[in-house]
Amino acid sequence: MPTIVVDVMPKAELLDPQGKAVAGALARLDVDGFTDVRIGKRFELTVDGEVDEATLATARRIADEILSNSVIEDVVGIEVVE
Amino acid sequence: MPTIVVDVMPKAELLDPQGKAVAGALARLDVDGFTDVRIGKRFELTVDGEVDEATLATARRIADEILSNSVIEDVVGIEVVE
Repeated sequence: MPTIVVDVMPKAELLDPQGKAVAGALARLDVDGFTDVRIGKRFELTVDGEVDEATLATARRIADEILSNSVIEDVVGIEVVE
Repeated sequence: MPTIVVDVMPKAELLDPQGKAVAGALARLDVDGFTDVRIGKRFELTVDGEVDEATLATARRIADEILSNSVIEDVVGIEVVE
């Protein structure tokens, strides 16, 4: 069944304590080459049937209204995968 | 600066209580068309400089060893974005 993937990230202007913690851990473990880590969420919505325009519109609406908190997060991607 | 995106999802055979909660909320809110929701993590690693084979190898290693818990999670994607 097709899946719609919704990616949600903390807004760029906000601190991301989880990401900072991972970035700090990488530095302590001598992993270099990365200057920043940010952690967001990936939602996989399994679609019942075909993905049509209405399904995509619903996915966009729930991404904005239910899956993300627009005060602190941005929806950075909505894509259909098989 | 280029960014490496690492996607981590709970293993398919495991329950995902967060995802189940969202799926239940969608049903209660009369959003239909989706049979299942699973919630994973999206890591954005900002790369210091160019992305070469060594950087990608490091990203793959930390995705497996640090960013995910291989007992309960799978790394489902590693890709470079600008």
